[in-house]
Amino acid sequence: MENGSEQKWRFQGNKELASASSVTIRWLLDSLKRNLNQNDSRPTIPLSHGDPSVFPSFRTTDAAQDAIVDAVRSAKYNHYSTNVGILPARRAIADYLNRDLPYKLSPDDVYLTVGCKQAIEAILTVLARPGANILLPRPGYPTYEAYARCNHLEVRYFDLLQEKGWEVDLDAVVEALADENTVAMVIINPGNPCGNVYSNQHLHKIAETARKLGIMVIADEVYQHLTFGSNPFVPMGVFGSIVPVVTLGSISKRWMVPGWRLGWLVTSDPNNILQKSGIVDSIKDFLTISSDPATFTQGAIPQILEKTEEDFFSKTNGLLREAADICYDGIKEIPCLACPYKPEGAMFVMVKLNLSLLEGIKNDMEFCLQLAKEESVIILPGVAVGLKDWLRITFAVELSGLEDGLGRVKAFCQRHAKKQ
Amino acid sequence: MENGSEQKWRFQGNKELASASSVTIRWLLDSLKRNLNQNDSRPTIPLSHGDPSVFPSFRTTDAAQDAIVDAVRSAKYNHYSTNVGILPARRAIADYLNRDLPYKLSPDDVYLTVGCKQAIEAILTVLARPGANILLPRPGYPTYEAYARCNHLEVRYFDLLQEKGWEVDLDAVVEALADENTVAMVIINPGNPCGNVYSNQHLHKIAETARKLGIMVIADEVYQHLTFGSNPFVPMGVFGSIVPVVTLGSISKRWMVPGWRLGWLVTSDPNNILQKSGIVDSIKDFLTISSDPATFTQGAIPQILEKTEEDFFSKTNGLLREAADICYDGIKEIPCLACPYKPEGAMFVMVKLNLSLLEGIKNDMEFCLQLAKEESVIILPGVAVGLKDWLRITFAVELSGLEDGLGRVKAFCQRHAKKQ
Repeated sequence: MENGSEQKWRFQGNKELASASSVTIRWLLDSLKRNLNQNDSRPTIPLSHGDPSVFPSFRTTDAAQDAIVDAVRSAKYNHYSTNVGILPARRAIADYLNRDLPYKLSPDDVYLTVGCKQAIEAILTVLARPGANILLPRPGYPTYEAYARCNHLEVRYFDLLQEKGWEVDLDAVVEALADENTVAMVIINPGNPCGNVYSNQHLHKIAETARKLGIMVIADEVYQHLTFGSNPFVPMGVFGSIVPVVTLGSISKRWMVPGWRLGWLVTSDPNNILQKSGIVDSIKDFLTISSDPATFTQGAIPQILEKTEEDFFSKTNGLLREAADICYDGIKEIPCLACPYKPEGAMFVMVKLNLSLLEGIKNDMEFCLQLAKEESVIILPGVAVGLKDWLRITFAVELSGLEDGLGRVKAFCQRHAKKQ
Repeated sequence: MENGSEQKWRFQGNKELASASSVTIRWLLDSLKRNLNQNDSRPTIPLSHGDPSVFPSFRTTDAAQDAIVDAVRSAKYNHYSTNVGILPARRAIADYLNRDLPYKLSPDDVYLTVGCKQAIEAILTVLARPGANILLPRPGYPTYEAYARCNHLEVRYFDLLQEKGWEVDLDAVVEALADENTVAMVIINPGNPCGNVYSNQHLHKIAETARKLGIMVIADEVYQHLTFGSNPFVPMGVFGSIVPVVTLGSISKRWMVPGWRLGWLVTSDPNNILQKSGIVDSIKDFLTISSDPATFTQGAIPQILEKTEEDFFSKTNGLLREAADICYDGIKEIPCLACPYKPEGAMFVMVKLNLSLLEGIKNDMEFCLQLAKEESVIILPGVAVGLKDWLRITFAVELSGLEDGLGRVKAFCQRHAKKQ
C-alpha cells in the first residue's frame, strides 16, 4: 500500500451520468466543435443552438442591464435566497403571466429556478417514482430525457405531426402510449425544435386528453411570446381548470440573456389538485435542497419586467420573422434539404435531409460532422432531438451570418451531390 | 371521468425528496421561524446561519460589486456558459488557489458551480453507485446527507473530538468505519459547525489515512481564509500528492455574498488519479446536464479576485475575532451553556446544553423552539448538525445584535432555570 504503483483506489466514475449526459445537446455540440478545421480562416457560424445573445442585433435591452446593476449596487440582495425565491420577484412574475390568463396566479404559484433547466430538473425529479413513465414529444428537447435518465423515470415518446404543423398526434398516440403509471406529458410551445406555435384549439384538446388520462401537462414555454406568424402565443395555463399545468419559463429567450440563469416553475392549477396530490410540497422539498438563482437577479426581476419597452419585444420578433424568411427561402434552394413547415415562433426550423441525393454521407450525424469540418458551420443533427436524418437549424443569428451560413451549406451540398 | 369529483390523477408527491429535505438546515430554520411570536416588537436576532451579508459591518467590498456591474454592462456575458465554466474565470480561480499550494493547478482542474452547494451535489452524485458509502463528520453540514439521500449513497459518520479541538478521530473511527465500498471522506475546514481550524499536521494525517483506505478526500473549504486564531488556514490540496483531493469552495463567505451563487469544485491531484479512475469525466458529465452559475458572475471573477484589497479580508477577520470573543465570553456567563472550544475560524461555535439545569425543556429542539417564541432569537439545535442537546451559534452578526441576542438567551435560561 505504501508504494504508489500498488495503491488501490475505491472510487470510480458514474456510468449513469455518462448515459444521461450523452443525450444532451451540449454534449453533441462539443463533439461537432471538435471536428472544426482550425485552419479555416472563416468565422465559425453557429446555426446550432438557441442563444443569439452574442450577436449585436439580439443584444438585450439596457432596461434589463440597468435592473441588475441597480440590484447589485443596492447591496440588498447579497444574502441567501429562500427555497422558492424572494417574494417581490415571484409577485412580479405572477403579475406578468396573469396578463394572459383567465384567472389570477398568486406569488405562491411561482417558484424561481436556475434557468428553465433547473425547472425541468425539479418537476422530473418530483414526478419520479419506481415504475412511473412520462410522455415526451418527438422531436423534442433532450434535456427532458437526460433528467428522466438521472431519475429512472421511463420515457415514452409521442410523435409531432409535420403534416399538421407539428401538432401532437393526440388521438392515435397519446392514448395508446399512456397507462396507469403515466404521470405527465410535456409540450413545448412555441416549439423547440420545430418553431411551431399551437392554436388555442389544439391546446384545449391537449388539456382534455391529459385530463382523460389523469396526467398533468408540463408546458415548456421558455420561448413564450417569441411568435411571428398567424398563431398568437397562448399559455397552456389558460386550460389549468381542465388539467393541472406546470409551466416552465425564464427570461433567457425573450430578453436574450440565457447566461443570466433566471427561470421559473409555475403551477397553473385553480383547482389545487397539485397541492392535494403532494406535488406542491415535493416541489418545495426539491428547492429546499437545491441551489438557487442569484438573489440580485431575483431582486432585478420586478424592474426587468416593468421597465422593458414593448419596442424591444416587437423589434426582436420582427428580426426573428425576417431571419425565418431568409432561412426558409435559403433552404428551398438547396436540393437535398426540405422544409415542410415554415416556423412561426421560437428560433428553430426542422429540415429533412434527402440522403439519396448525396454521395458518401450516410446519416444526419455524418452530414453535420463533415459540414463542421469543411465549412465551419455548426448544425444540430436531427438524431439529437429524436428525428434521424433531419437537421435542426436555428435562424436566430445575425442576418449576414445566416446568409453566409446557408450559402456554405448549399456549397457543401453541391460538392457532395450524387453524380447522375 | 367527466365529472370533477370522480376525476382520478395518476401523479403524486415524492417521499424521497421529503426525506432529503427534512435534514437540511433550511428546512429546520423554516420550522423555527414559524414559532416566532409575531407580537414581539423587538427585532428577530438570527444567530442561526452563516450569512452575515445583511449586516452593515459585513457588507461586501465595492470592488466585487464593481466587477459584477462591469461584466453586466459589457454585455459580453449574456450567453450560455460552457459545462465547466468560462476559461478566464477558471484560470483566475486556479491562480488564486495556487498561492497556497506547493504545485500549480491548471484552469482544467477548476469547475465552476452554482455556489458551493452545487459542488457538493456534483461530487456526491458522481460518487454514488449501488452499495457505496461515504464518511461524513459528526457534527457536520447536513447538505451532505441530503444529497447522499437523493443519490442513495450510504452515509457513515465519524466523530470530531471536542477535547482535541474538533479534530477527526482518525485512528479509532475512520479505519473502523471504512470498508471496500467506502469511496470518500469529507472534511470541513475551517469547520462548520465547530469554528475549528485544522493544523498542517492533522491534515497530513488525514491524507495518510485516506490513502491507506484508498478513498478520496472531499475538502469543503467554503470558509477558507476566514481564520483568526493560532492555526493558519492550510488547504487540503497541499496533500494532493498523497491522496486525491476534491476541494469545494466559493466566493460566498470570504466576500460575504452567498446570494451571488458562484462556487467551484477543484481537483487537487497531481498524480491524475481522478482522471484515470473516471471521476473527472463524471464531473464533466454532471456539469453537462446541470445548470450553470450566471455567465456574468463568472466574467466578473478575475476582477473580483484581483481587485479586492487585503484590507477588506483583514477587517472581516478582525471583526469575526471580536465577535467570537464576545460570543465566547457571553456564553461563559450562562450557567446552562458550556463552550468547550473557542472558535478560530468560520462563523460558528458549538455550545453544550446542560438540560439538567433547566425546567421543562427536554432537548435542544425544544430549547430552540421556545427561545424563538419567547425571545425572538433563532439558534440552530445541535441535532440538525448531528449533536443532540448541543447548539450551533453563529457569531457572524452585527456586534450589537450579538450582545443583545446573548442577553436574551441568558434571560431565557434564567427564566427557565430549575429551582434548587
